[in-house]
Amino acid sequence: MVSKIGINGYGTIGKRVADAIKLQDDMELVGVTKNTPNFEAKLAEKKNYDLYSSTKKRYDKFVEKGYKVEGTLDDLIDKVDLIVDCTPAGIGKRNKKKYEENDVKAIFQGGESHELTDFSFNSSINYEKALGRDYIRVVSCNTTALCRTISRLKNNFQIGKIRATMIRRGGDPDQDDRGPLNAIKPKLEVPSHHGPDVQSVDSEIDIETTAVKVPTTIMHMHSLNVEVSKDITKEKIVSTLRKDPRILLIEKDTGIDSTSKLVELARDEGRKRYDIWEIPIWVKSIEVTEGGIYLFQAVHQESDVVPENIDGIRAMLELENSRGKSKQKTNETLGIGELL
Amino acid sequence: MVSKIGINGYGTIGKRVADAIKLQDDMELVGVTKNTPNFEAKLAEKKNYDLYSSTKKRYDKFVEKGYKVEGTLDDLIDKVDLIVDCTPAGIGKRNKKKYEENDVKAIFQGGESHELTDFSFNSSINYEKALGRDYIRVVSCNTTALCRTISRLKNNFQIGKIRATMIRRGGDPDQDDRGPLNAIKPKLEVPSHHGPDVQSVDSEIDIETTAVKVPTTIMHMHSLNVEVSKDITKEKIVSTLRKDPRILLIEKDTGIDSTSKLVELARDEGRKRYDIWEIPIWVKSIEVTEGGIYLFQAVHQESDVVPENIDGIRAMLELENSRGKSKQKTNETLGIGELL
Amino acid sequence: MVSKIGINGYGTIGKRVADAIKLQDDMELVGVTKNTPNFEAKLAEKKNYDLYSSTKKRYDKFVEKGYKVEGTLDDLIDKVDLIVDCTPAGIGKRNKKKYEENDVKAIFQGGESHELTDFSFNSSINYEKALGRDYIRVVSCNTTALCRTISRLKNNFQIGKIRATMIRRGGDPDQDDRGPLNAIKPKLEVPSHHGPDVQSVDSEIDIETTAVKVPTTIMHMHSLNVEVSKDITKEKIVSTLRKDPRILLIEKDTGIDSTSKLVELARDEGRKRYDIWEIPIWVKSIEVTEGGIYLFQAVHQESDVVPENIDGIRAMLELENSRGKSKQKTNETLGIGELL
Amino acid sequence: MVSKIGINGYGTIGKRVADAIKLQDDMELVGVTKNTPNFEAKLAEKKNYDLYSSTKKRYDKFVEKGYKVEGTLDDLIDKVDLIVDCTPAGIGKRNKKKYEENDVKAIFQGGESHELTDFSFNSSINYEKALGRDYIRVVSCNTTALCRTISRLKNNFQIGKIRATMIRRGGDPDQDDRGPLNAIKPKLEVPSHHGPDVQSVDSEIDIETTAVKVPTTIMHMHSLNVEVSKDITKEKIVSTLRKDPRILLIEKDTGIDSTSKLVELARDEGRKRYDIWEIPIWVKSIEVTEGGIYLFQAVHQESDVVPENIDGIRAMLELENSRGKSKQKTNETLGIGELL
Repeated sequence: MVSKIGINGYGTIGKRVADAIKLQDDMELVGVTKNTPNFEAKLAEKKNYDLYSSTKKRYDKFVEKGYKVEGTLDDLIDKVDLIVDCTPAGIGKRNKKKYEENDVKAIFQGGESHELTDFSFNSSINYEKALGRDYIRVVSCNTTALCRTISRLKNNFQIGKIRATMIRRGGDPDQDDRGPLNAIKPKLEVPSHHGPDVQSVDSEIDIETTAVKVPTTIMHMHSLNVEVSKDITKEKIVSTLRKDPRILLIEKDTGIDSTSKLVELARDEGRKRYDIWEIPIWVKSIEVTEGGIYLFQAVHQESDVVPENIDGIRAMLELENSRGKSKQKTNETLGIGELL
Repeated sequence: MVSKIGINGYGTIGKRVADAIKLQDDMELVGVTKNTPNFEAKLAEKKNYDLYSSTKKRYDKFVEKGYKVEGTLDDLIDKVDLIVDCTPAGIGKRNKKKYEENDVKAIFQGGESHELTDFSFNSSINYEKALGRDYIRVVSCNTTALCRTISRLKNNFQIGKIRATMIRRGGDPDQDDRGPLNAIKPKLEVPSHHGPDVQSVDSEIDIETTAVKVPTTIMHMHSLNVEVSKDITKEKIVSTLRKDPRILLIEKDTGIDSTSKLVELARDEGRKRYDIWEIPIWVKSIEVTEGGIYLFQAVHQESDVVPENIDGIRAMLELENSRGKSKQKTNETLGIGELL
Repeated sequence: MVSKIGINGYGTIGKRVADAIKLQDDMELVGVTKNTPNFEAKLAEKKNYDLYSSTKKRYDKFVEKGYKVEGTLDDLIDKVDLIVDCTPAGIGKRNKKKYEENDVKAIFQGGESHELTDFSFNSSINYEKALGRDYIRVVSCNTTALCRTISRLKNNFQIGKIRATMIRRGGDPDQDDRGPLNAIKPKLEVPSHHGPDVQSVDSEIDIETTAVKVPTTIMHMHSLNVEVSKDITKEKIVSTLRKDPRILLIEKDTGIDSTSKLVELARDEGRKRYDIWEIPIWVKSIEVTEGGIYLFQAVHQESDVVPENIDGIRAMLELENSRGKSKQKTNETLGIGELL
Repeated sequence: MVSKIGINGYGTIGKRVADAIKLQDDMELVGVTKNTPNFEAKLAEKKNYDLYSSTKKRYDKFVEKGYKVEGTLDDLIDKVDLIVDCTPAGIGKRNKKKYEENDVKAIFQGGESHELTDFSFNSSINYEKALGRDYIRVVSCNTTALCRTISRLKNNFQIGKIRATMIRRGGDPDQDDRGPLNAIKPKLEVPSHHGPDVQSVDSEIDIETTAVKVPTTIMHMHSLNVEVSKDITKEKIVSTLRKDPRILLIEKDTGIDSTSKLVELARDEGRKRYDIWEIPIWVKSIEVTEGGIYLFQAVHQESDVVPENIDGIRAMLELENSRGKSKQKTNETLGIGELL
C-alpha cells in the first residue's frame, strides 16, 4: 500500500516536492495547502492536486474565487501519514504542535531551527538515523550542497578544516521585491550560521563559513576550501565526486562558466522549471595546493533539497531501509544525473 | 511527403525552431549547423539532431572533440527544401548568396534588414503573401509582439496613431558578458527603428516607437498607446484580444505583476525552457482614455518568433494555404494558448 | 534678518535641503531631526548641524550613544519660522497637526497627497501663488521633472496632449533591500498617478503617463511625447530648453548615453553626492514628427527637488517676491547650470 | 623645485591621479593625454589641465572639435620628469619603449604584468625599494587592498597561510556595456592570479585566492581568512588596523552594512567622486577562531590605488626618502582617514 502524503505550503519548495511525490510509486499525494488564490493555486487545480486552505477563513476566500477546495489544513492532516511542511521560515514551528496533536509525522525545511526536531537530515549522511523518525528537518539549500560535497570528500579522503565563502542570490526569481540592487551585502556575523548548520547534520565536519548577498536571483555560488592531510590529487577528487549522481561535474569544453549558463543547460535539457537538483562543480576549478582542495560549486536554491525531501519521507515511513536504494529510486524517478 | 528543413545556427532561436519542427507532421528536421563544440552541440547530439559544422575548418574541430558530424553547411543545404537561418545579425546576408546558388529557400531572422528579402513576415498579418516565396524575413521579437497586438486591434477597431515605448532587456540569460549594470540606456535615435520595422510588415500601421535598455535578461516590456477615433471600451478590447491564442491575457487575481512572475508561471506550467510564445498583456493595464488605448505587454525575446518561423515554413513551401489552419496547427503542436 | 528653518527628517532629501539652506544668506538652518543614531546622524554632528530627536524616546537613545542632542522635534518647532518636512511618505500628514498647533509654516514632499496642503508647488510654474502660504507640497522627483520640461514647452509653443512613460529606479542607492532583481514591474494602474500629479500643479497640462520599475538605483528615465498643433522645429525646442538652467542639454559629442555616464559626469565635475539638480535631456533624442515632439530625459530622484524646496521657503516666507530672482539665487548658490 | 608629472590616459585612474597631484606641493601636473574628445576631455579643459592627444591623428580630431591641445604624447614626454601611465591594460607595455627612448621615468598600473618593470609597488610594503627607480608598477585595486591589510597583520602578528575569496564588481559605473546581468561568474583558474600578484610585492606572504564576478558596479568585497599561530584577539587586530589611516574601520552602530551604504557615506562626507581611498573593514566581521582571523573588507576599485601612485612618484623621484612622511603627506593632502 502506498503512503499518503500532504504538502503544507504550495510555494517554491512545496510545488516541487509535490511534483516529485507524483513520480514515486510508494507514496501518494493527497493534497496541498495554499494561502492565496493566485496562479500557483490555479496550477494545483490544473494538475488535479486536491487543494486545501491553510485556515477556515482562507477556505471561504478560495470558494469565493470559484476554486474547488477539499477542506482546510486540519482536514488534510486527518487524511495523511506524513506532512511535508513547506511553509515560510518560522511558521513550521507553530505548525508542529498541530502535527503532534494529530499524531502525524512531518518534515520541516531549513528555515526552521535544528532544535525543532533535534534531527537535521541529509540523505548522503544520515539516512539510516531517520528511519522511523516522527520529525525531521531537511537542511537548507546551502547546507544541503555543502553536506553532499563534503560528505563525499570525507568518506574518501582524510580531510581537515573546511572554509567556504557563500555568494548568495538576493531572492528567488519570483521575489521581485527583494534586493540588493547594485550592492554586495556581507553577512557580518562571522563565521556565518551555515557552518554550524552543516555540523547539525554531521558534527564531525570541521567547517567555518562566511556569506555575502549579491544582486542575482538564479543560483548561489560556493568557493570551497578543504584542508587535506594526505596525498590527494585532482584526478582522485574528480573521480570520487563523479560517483555521486547528485553532484554534476561541469567539464571545461562545455563552455559553461557562469550560473546563467548552467540555467541555460537545464532549460535546454528540458528540466522542468530548469531545476538543478544536483550540485554543479566546475572540474576546471578543482585544484589541490598546499592550502588544500579548492573548488567552485553552484547551488540551485529552489530545487536541490527536493530529492532530500523524497528520501526523507521514505526513511521516516520506512518505505525503504537502504539509503542507496532510496537515493537511486529518487534519482531515477526525477532524472537526476542525466544532465550533460 | 514531408518537407525537409535545415537549421543554420543552433543557438537561442535555432534550437527552439528545431524543437518546434520536430513537433510537426508535415516537415522533417534534417540537421542543424553549429560553430562551437559546446554544451549546445552536445544537446543536439543527445537529441539525435544531425550535426553539421558551419565551415570545413570547424568540421575538423568537432571531429577532434569526438563529435559525430554529418558534414558542413554546404552538405546540409544539399539535402533540404528550406533553411531556417538563425545565425547572428548580419551573417544571414552573407549566407543568402550561398542559398541562392544552391537554389534553396530560406527564412531569415529579424537581425537582418528588410531589404535582404524584401518581405517581412508576421503570420497574423501577411501569411498569404508568403505563399510560395523563396526568401522571407521573420521580424524581430519586439516587432512580432507589436504586429500581433496591433493587427488584432486594427482588424477590429478604427485605430489611429500608435506610440510605444519599449523597455528592453540588456541581453539574453546566457549572455553573461552584456550590460548595462545599474544603468538605463536610451536609444537616442528617436523614433527608434522598431516603428518602421512594423511598417515593413504592414505599411498601413501608423506607429512611432522609443526604446531603452535596462539591467534585466528575461523579457522586454512595451508600454503601448493607440489612438482611437471611435467608441471603444475596455471590454471590447479584452474580448478581441482574447480571441487570439498567441496573446495571453493576464488577469488581476493571478498575482502576476512582473516579468519574473510571468517566467515563474511558464516554469510552473512545465513550458520547456519556460518559453512564452504568446504575448502577455495585463488586463488591468488596458484602459481607454481621451488619449486612446493604453496597455502593457511583455515579450519573451527568446521564443515569441518560434511559431512565426513554423508558419513561415508552411507558407513558403505551400504545405498549407490557409493562414488560420497553419496557425492553429502550430498552436496545437506547441501548446500555445494553454497557459493559465 | 535671516529666517529660521528646521528640517524634520535628515534622510535622503532632508540632508540635501539642509546643505542647500546653509548656502543661502537669507535663511538659517536651526537644526535637523533624526530617528536613528547611524552614520547620517554622525554626519550632522560633524557638520555642526544641531541635532534634534524625532521623539522623547529617541532622544534618550541618542544621548545614550553619546550624541549631543538639542531637544526633540517640539523644541525645534519652537525655534523656527518654517519646517521642511522630509519624513517618509505618509508621516508628513501626521506631523501637520503639530505644525498647525504650533503655528509654524511647513513644506511637505511629494510622498504626501495634494490634499494635505491643497497646493502643489513647482517653482517654474506657480512660485507667485506660494507667496505667503503656510503649507505647500513640493511635488515628487518625477513630477518635478515633468513640470520643468513641460512648462518650458507650454510657455513657448502651442502644445497638446502629452504622453510619458517613466522607467523608474527600484530604490535609492542606499536602499539595499529593495528590488526588483532581474525583472520589470509595470505599474498596472494605467494611466499612472503621475499625470494627475502634474495637473495638481498646473491643471491646464493635458498629460497621461505610464510607469515601470526596473533594476537600477541611480536615476529614472522618461520617454516623453508632446503633441504640437503648430509649426515647430527641433532647433526651436533646443533653444527654448537651453534657456532654463534647471534643464541640462546633453550634446552628442559628450559620449554620455546612459544614466550611469550622467552620474560619472556629476562625479567628475565635483558635484557633492553627484547630485544632478537639473533635468538632463539628450539633444540627439529630441525629434519632431507627425506624432509630436519626442525626447528622453533623466531624473536624479535624490536631488532634483532640492532647488524647489529652497524656492518654496523663499516664497512662503516672502523673502523674495520675484520668481526669477529666487530661482537665480538658488541656482547660483547651488551651482545649477554649471555642468558641462 | 617641484617635479614635473604627466598623465598618459585621462580615464578612471588617470583623472583621479591628476587631481591628487594638483594637491601636492612637491609635484606639478604638466598635462594629460586623452584619446577621445568626450566629456572627460571637456572636464580636463574646464580644470585647466593641459591636454595632449595620444597620437598625431587624434590631435587633429581634438582640434577639429575645437579643443585647445598642447601637443601629442611625445610632446608631453619631453616636458616631464615622470609619466604616470594610466592607459588600459596591455597598452602600458607598448608605451614603455617610448619612455625608455626618451629617458623618462614611468609608473604603470596593475593591468600590466609584474615583468614589465620587475618591481610591483605598494607603499605600505616596499616604499624604500622604489627610491630612485625608473619604472614601477602600482598593483591593482584588489592586490593593493590585500597588501594593506595583510602587511599590517604580518608586521604585528605571526601569521600563516592566507585565503581570500574576492567578490568582484562586473564593471565600473560608467562601463555600461559590461555584465554579468543576473549571473555569478567564477574565475575558474583556481587559485586566482591575485595571490601571486600579492607575492610580487612581498614574496613572504603565503596567500591563495579565488574570485567571482557579480552584477554590481560600485565596489569589490573580500572575505579574508588568515591563519595565526599565536595568541591573538579581536581587540588586538582592531587596534592594529586602526593605526593605519588607509584602513577604515566600520563600526556596528553606523548602520553601514553593504557596499552601497559605504558609497552613501562617502557621498555624504563630500568625498569627490565618492572616492574611498581607504580599505573599509567591518569591525563586526573581525573574528578569531580555530581557523584563524576572519574579516570582510570592501575595495573601491576606482580609487584605492590613487595614494599609492602619489607615494610612488615621491619615491621614484626621491622627493621624500621616508615612507612614513610620504604616506602622511599624501594622506593629509587627500583627506585620507577622515571619513566617519
